[in-house]
Amino acid sequence: MTFSATDHAAMARALALAELGLETTTPNPRVGCVILAADGSTVGEGWHARAGEPHAEVHALRMAGERARGATAYVTLEPCSHHGRTPPCADALIAAGVRRVVAAMADPNPLVAGAGLARLRAAGIDTAVGLLETQAQELNIGFVARMRRGRPWLRLKTAATLDGKSALNNGVSQWITGPEARRDGHRWRARACAILTGIGTVHADDPQLSVRDVPCQRQPRKVLVDARLEVSPQARILAAGDCLIATASSDGGRIARLQDLGAEIVHLPDARGKVDLPALLAELGRRGVNEVHAEAGCGLNGSLLREGCVDELLMYFAPMLVGDVAQGLFRLPAAETLDSAVRLQIIDLRALGADYRVRARPLPP
Amino acid sequence: MTFSATDHAAMARALALAELGLETTTPNPRVGCVILAADGSTVGEGWHARAGEPHAEVHALRMAGERARGATAYVTLEPCSHHGRTPPCADALIAAGVRRVVAAMADPNPLVAGAGLARLRAAGIDTAVGLLETQAQELNIGFVARMRRGRPWLRLKTAATLDGKSALNNGVSQWITGPEARRDGHRWRARACAILTGIGTVHADDPQLSVRDVPCQRQPRKVLVDARLEVSPQARILAAGDCLIATASSDGGRIARLQDLGAEIVHLPDARGKVDLPALLAELGRRGVNEVHAEAGCGLNGSLLREGCVDELLMYFAPMLVGDVAQGLFRLPAAETLDSAVRLQIIDLRALGADYRVRARPLPP
Repeated sequence: MTFSATDHAAMARALALAELGLETTTPNPRVGCVILAADGSTVGEGWHARAGEPHAEVHALRMAGERARGATAYVTLEPCSHHGRTPPCADALIAAGVRRVVAAMADPNPLVAGAGLARLRAAGIDTAVGLLETQAQELNIGFVARMRRGRPWLRLKTAATLDGKSALNNGVSQWITGPEARRDGHRWRARACAILTGIGTVHADDPQLSVRDVPCQRQPRKVLVDARLEVSPQARILAAGDCLIATASSDGGRIARLQDLGAEIVHLPDARGKVDLPALLAELGRRGVNEVHAEAGCGLNGSLLREGCVDELLMYFAPMLVGDVAQGLFRLPAAETLDSAVRLQIIDLRALGADYRVRARPLPP
Repeated sequence: MTFSATDHAAMARALALAELGLETTTPNPRVGCVILAADGSTVGEGWHARAGEPHAEVHALRMAGERARGATAYVTLEPCSHHGRTPPCADALIAAGVRRVVAAMADPNPLVAGAGLARLRAAGIDTAVGLLETQAQELNIGFVARMRRGRPWLRLKTAATLDGKSALNNGVSQWITGPEARRDGHRWRARACAILTGIGTVHADDPQLSVRDVPCQRQPRKVLVDARLEVSPQARILAAGDCLIATASSDGGRIARLQDLGAEIVHLPDARGKVDLPALLAELGRRGVNEVHAEAGCGLNGSLLREGCVDELLMYFAPMLVGDVAQGLFRLPAAETLDSAVRLQIIDLRALGADYRVRARPLPP
């Protein structure tokens, strides 16, 4: 399949449109659409903004009106073919008389999975798929993960000194990194569907875990791992009344008190009496969570990593050294050889003010 | 003082020439010289290659011959005015009839310190100083440090996992980083006058501490911090017979045995019976060492940092996580607040193969 420069430019524009829904489409994917008339002029543009509202194609077709006839539609994800909360986009494209549909990627949703493109082809429309596919996959990395494997994409954020310390050994940790890094961290929080932390971090820092340093159109839901339901009713994480608490405790009194504060309790004990983290992620997947942003301490960080729950690391480093007695980033069992190290691939490295950021993904063991 | 584009280009070229002496001029500075005739054509180029051999200006003047008359000479360091192992370059420039001399920086050597430029001006030559001065200072950062404060520039190299671990807790550490990072590390070794390590690293890794992964014109001298003279006569660091051992021990038998192996022993105890590290650096300065490349373990790294001996950090990070029980980078006393952290400024951040490198310098406390 070859694509022209016009095709590339139109799809790049469609991806930029899709990104406008970065913080709001959850649980749906971010999708953009551009419609070009036969003479190459743009006649329609649209993006999906919120679940329940029209899909990108519908917005773009409305803008194009009659000019959609004989045009090419560029969509960042295969048009849907099923009746969800809105009618199938494939039908709308057929009805509008478009001549050709280019999709960046097939829909990983088993309810679609090629059926949308097949429907278009059956109606005599030229279809092509795979243009800027990598970019499209990255944009919806959480949605793709949830559709393909039933659990969200988990991005673990850490902030540490250059010698890998997240806090002093007395727990002092706040503001290791500077304002640029913190703002960047909030930008990543904002795109997540849920922000996850552990009871250790709540005890130590009492974080709000809200998006504050950047504009945000809706706050991600908070998720707390609290095996023994030790969270204080005054904890700031409970303040918004939307906290999901994963626990191994069956203490009815505590559960009732937390429910009164608006928290939802899910009981997910593992064999050791801790919270079953893979089961928690599966539960979040069932609830339509695409991307989880985790900010936790050494203990939960280590557990998430050890149990294969971490898909991406977002590591901020401050130009500072505090020495080896301070608190590390990941509590892991002592390794005998480097063979048991968790190997990563660095996908991005950049300076942020006086600090820097590493994005990395675990390699298959 | 304003400089023309021609001036900038000529000085940039002179700096590139100076760099050809990066590994060999010790204890002298790296110096380059370009001579431009009045019509802008290059008539002479030279660089200082080795102590005892002609200075950059002499090489360039020889190449220029009669064409030096009325020309402009660009030198990366103020021409010398004293009789060292070679006659003063200022006199040579005067004798050759150059019209103008542009120096990147004044010579920090108290034996010169402006006297070279003054001598040129007294002979009616136009002089200017400060063109690409920052670059010139960086090129001779060790020489400048030694001249200004009497001790070399110490660059501390570390290699660690992303979570700041230099070795597992059983000591396994070799080859954390990949070939690009190791080769880069050897490039930094090659430019140093001396490579410093501690007895802990010799016990754990038995390193050669030679330059092997890149071409090298002369091997830096090895320096070992060994308070109790515990080094084994079979240790590879002793193999080249040029090791300087700093100790707090007066054990005559051990001293004699090590001297038999070609090692030189300096007795530099501090009040606690350890090696007095600032005194060792002063001693190295007296011996004409400009740049020290340190590669040590957690203990000596921490001591060097705590005692203010580290001027620059060269930190390699491998995309790997091993967890917090593994060995850290710097043994430092537990801090109560982040105010006591060693603050750094990152001066360079770059990917090297699958790894990355951070260069940073401590900020004044």
